[in-house]
Amino acid sequence: MSASVDRYRVRPGQRFRLADCDPEDNSTFDGEREAAEAEFAALNDRLEALQELLHAEGRHRVLVVLQAMDTGGKDGVIRKVFEGVNPTGVRVASFKVPTAPEMARDYLWRAHQQVPANGELVIFNRSHYEDLLVVRVHELAPEKRWRRRFDHIQAWEQMLADEGTTIVKFFLHISKDEQRQRLQDRLDDPEKRWKFSLGDLKERERWHDYQAAYEEVIDRTSTDSAPWYVIPANRKWYRDLVICRILVATLESLDMTFPQPADLTGVVVT
Amino acid sequence: MSASVDRYRVRPGQRFRLADCDPEDNSTFDGEREAAEAEFAALNDRLEALQELLHAEGRHRVLVVLQAMDTGGKDGVIRKVFEGVNPTGVRVASFKVPTAPEMARDYLWRAHQQVPANGELVIFNRSHYEDLLVVRVHELAPEKRWRRRFDHIQAWEQMLADEGTTIVKFFLHISKDEQRQRLQDRLDDPEKRWKFSLGDLKERERWHDYQAAYEEVIDRTSTDSAPWYVIPANRKWYRDLVICRILVATLESLDMTFPQPADLTGVVVT
Repeated sequence: MSASVDRYRVRPGQRFRLADCDPEDNSTFDGEREAAEAEFAALNDRLEALQELLHAEGRHRVLVVLQAMDTGGKDGVIRKVFEGVNPTGVRVASFKVPTAPEMARDYLWRAHQQVPANGELVIFNRSHYEDLLVVRVHELAPEKRWRRRFDHIQAWEQMLADEGTTIVKFFLHISKDEQRQRLQDRLDDPEKRWKFSLGDLKERERWHDYQAAYEEVIDRTSTDSAPWYVIPANRKWYRDLVICRILVATLESLDMTFPQPADLTGVVVT
Repeated sequence: MSASVDRYRVRPGQRFRLADCDPEDNSTFDGEREAAEAEFAALNDRLEALQELLHAEGRHRVLVVLQAMDTGGKDGVIRKVFEGVNPTGVRVASFKVPTAPEMARDYLWRAHQQVPANGELVIFNRSHYEDLLVVRVHELAPEKRWRRRFDHIQAWEQMLADEGTTIVKFFLHISKDEQRQRLQDRLDDPEKRWKFSLGDLKERERWHDYQAAYEEVIDRTSTDSAPWYVIPANRKWYRDLVICRILVATLESLDMTFPQPADLTGVVVT
């Protein structure tokens, strides 16, 4: 399990290159597909138990950031990895095109509103990082302005961590060819077509700009308090397995315990 | 006007001492009481006009932070200085004892929710600084934890400023003797007694702890982007005059203009 954590975690202070990461990599699992499924099922049960404990203990807050290129698998991860958790303690916050009230304030305003409370696990489906990705690629703000956001975001995440939030950030890394295949599948499958938009093809033309933007984001904002994990995501089973391993390891590191009630000796329910 | 701005602004990089500030000071106004009232009335009109322009232009956001010891005059400033402004574009956010949802998250969460939108002026009646004041004096968090908040707050305010918020912070500086007088007045006046609580006397016992906490807060968090102004506040007329001068100077520095509509030549309303 820790092999995945170590291998895909981006260490601060080392120059990170996306080119060094193979989206096809499955090197931390050695075995048959069935064995992978069995491990995933066991980890998934463990994740559910840990999330229940997080909720019961009510002391920690967990923020999971999901970023990826279009078709990278954010929705798939949410469905597959988190399908069994208790919705009372888990919330998905999706960040789409900013609304008028969001545009009228700083870009961290909407993200800050959605941070987890004690005992909560919140998944950011896209995040404040879009303000360093789509904003950069489409030049929605001058470079002088978005460049400062590396510092803002690092400081903001550090504040969240100092005040008791555990942060894990996943970049689901697919290849350009895998994206082509997945977009084509969406077009061809009547039940997937609703997820396709012509805008996706426009965005695909900027593939290299986005990859460069991601590379710098990951390089500059992976910290000890809020690490990025770059997950090989061409193979969905491997992507889900690795993410599940990392989440379980992260939650186990919190050393949570069920709250001890006061001495109940002799208490009888009548 | 700029004499007040310069004299009471705390410059970063110089060691700030509260003992150097006289709560009785009225050195930037030389004249009769009536002349002060006339100047205040004129400034107040100007402030109203500038706030209207802020709202009409809808480009800038203004955050005014008010901090003071009990009876220091926060409510008085809000009533007197802002009484004529248009409530559509002005909002007071009061930060009291944190609620349960606020306690379950980081201390900046509730402050961030209340920041001004484009065209808005928001007054923080108490603020995120309480998490470095009351929390410190009453040891509500370990020192290791609150000490980090100097950096958090500086970074957060810098982010707000970088993204277009103009920040001015006022500390209303009264003497311990003036506080005694004002608390006694509250006790003696049936229409003021509702503002008195026995807790105020408990807090008064910590006067020196609070003054020390304020001194460090002001010393460490007065920046070019989010300056502190330490306002002599024993004399209410002088306090209000100086604050009004600083607000007018701040809003004038934004160089606002009414939006220019498209060419309306020949347009007739029928």
